[in-house]
Amino acid sequence: MESLSEFFQKITANREPSNLYTPIDYTMSQGGKRLRPRLVLMSTELFGGNTELAMYPAAAFEMLHNFTLIHDDIMDNAPIRRGKPTVYQQWNSNIAILSGDALAAIALQIMLNTPTRPEIALELSKLLAQTSVEVCEGQQKDLDFETADAVNIDEYLQMIHLKTAVMLAGCLKAGAIISDTSRHNQETIYRLGVHIGLAFQLKDDLLDVYGDPSSFGKKIGGDIRENKKTYLYLRALEEATPTLRTELLHYFSSTQFDDTEKFNAVKNIYEKLSIREKTAAAIDEYARLAYEDLEQLQEVSENKIPDFKNLIVELSQRNK
Amino acid sequence: MESLSEFFQKITANREPSNLYTPIDYTMSQGGKRLRPRLVLMSTELFGGNTELAMYPAAAFEMLHNFTLIHDDIMDNAPIRRGKPTVYQQWNSNIAILSGDALAAIALQIMLNTPTRPEIALELSKLLAQTSVEVCEGQQKDLDFETADAVNIDEYLQMIHLKTAVMLAGCLKAGAIISDTSRHNQETIYRLGVHIGLAFQLKDDLLDVYGDPSSFGKKIGGDIRENKKTYLYLRALEEATPTLRTELLHYFSSTQFDDTEKFNAVKNIYEKLSIREKTAAAIDEYARLAYEDLEQLQEVSENKIPDFKNLIVELSQRNK
Repeated sequence: MESLSEFFQKITANREPSNLYTPIDYTMSQGGKRLRPRLVLMSTELFGGNTELAMYPAAAFEMLHNFTLIHDDIMDNAPIRRGKPTVYQQWNSNIAILSGDALAAIALQIMLNTPTRPEIALELSKLLAQTSVEVCEGQQKDLDFETADAVNIDEYLQMIHLKTAVMLAGCLKAGAIISDTSRHNQETIYRLGVHIGLAFQLKDDLLDVYGDPSSFGKKIGGDIRENKKTYLYLRALEEATPTLRTELLHYFSSTQFDDTEKFNAVKNIYEKLSIREKTAAAIDEYARLAYEDLEQLQEVSENKIPDFKNLIVELSQRNK
Repeated sequence: MESLSEFFQKITANREPSNLYTPIDYTMSQGGKRLRPRLVLMSTELFGGNTELAMYPAAAFEMLHNFTLIHDDIMDNAPIRRGKPTVYQQWNSNIAILSGDALAAIALQIMLNTPTRPEIALELSKLLAQTSVEVCEGQQKDLDFETADAVNIDEYLQMIHLKTAVMLAGCLKAGAIISDTSRHNQETIYRLGVHIGLAFQLKDDLLDVYGDPSSFGKKIGGDIRENKKTYLYLRALEEATPTLRTELLHYFSSTQFDDTEKFNAVKNIYEKLSIREKTAAAIDEYARLAYEDLEQLQEVSENKIPDFKNLIVELSQRNK
């Protein structure tokens, strides 16, 4: 996606102060999966829209995503992202706050300047703003969960819905809006995005325990080491006998355990409760719902349907 | 401005998570000068626009302003704002980052939802986004100045232009846009806003040294204690003899001096160089330019002109 990189370069080229724009360049030029622009473009193709125009929402959502990463990394004290020091680590947290703020505002400028009818640019921008608010709500819930005594699975799903799924759903809906397709299609593709977003995040939780270290980008077992309340953990608590529950709570009460001992002990509890299979079944169910959404779309480019089926498989069955 | 407070209350009422929305409520209900909404409404009246509609940009700019305060207070380690603990002090810096992010996005949502023609809502939102980017640039320049060896007066004026003046100018322009007045009027009222913004900030610098502690909201001498590179300091460096320059640089090289001794010594240097009079003359010049701008407006409500003249006097001659 060469032209997207060129798009990003133009945005910050020759702008100053450099302490504001260099961290933005640093972040945007790292790449990453570029999943969000890909979703905007795939959706635009599916609905027969103009992919040149779609570059604007594609770039805007990718920048919004990167803004959330810059700020989340401060909050999570994360030193490394995509194999490089995070912005707050490479510079400092003031620069990370401010360059994140600027990146969010520039993302919005790009969306507002989509060269299309004013109603459509306005609708796209409302979608971006709503996504931005919801992602903040999701991140706050995630922070709240760290210190919460009890979190149930519904609350967890609500959190990942906001933190992860609405952005993927927003990207797909942006492609539908820019293609000026029906309200029915806009809502259906949004729902499809929510379903693949939930599958995507549950798969992320699963890979933390059962991923292959050689293909999974992150270190295995990080969530367990950090006592992160993932789907696996919450499902295990729900399914556990009183004895296993006490054992699990014990391991998740401190970060002072030996990492390997803790990982193996927790994995052992998960195995007794078939958590791997139950999580995989939940992922499959979201993938199935996404397939159902796909079938409910009307007047789409039929030759693009296989791409979407592959996407659903890719995001729900991925190994990295 | 009762209805504005009601407007703010509705925005965050019954929204969760509370750790995100309580700090927003806390900030927005403190009030402050409410200068920015006042400018939007005054400009709307001047151009004969609909003041009901103007509530949207008025609220949006006030929220954008408060978002910048929440984030700036983290960066500046400021414990108190408007006589109360700052958000990061009352909660923590993660909550301050995130509730600031959400506030900025909600400000934008309000602007996008201004119930007017799509072209106008789009234009207002572009103005808000541009202001947001420029305020970030201004804040970054301000942070850069803290560690810069040399800053000249032009660079300083450019910084306060971005950090302070463009927001006041944007508020006035928003009133012009919503009133659907000519491009000439939009640009002229924006320039007027820049001029009163510069006068406003230079007056702020002046009050730090020559303000009356009983009427000025902040403690006198704070800028000198913190070695802040204000207009007064930079002007003094420019005007100083080599001996006075060395003395001034000496006092601004550390925060370890006795506060009273340092304040009196710096004030003494300023007096030798007539810095008070020179700063007052610069403020008067910006006020004069603002009057000139006012005269160049076309087809305005003549009975609202005195309000603007009073505003220029109020902001450039204020004692608090």
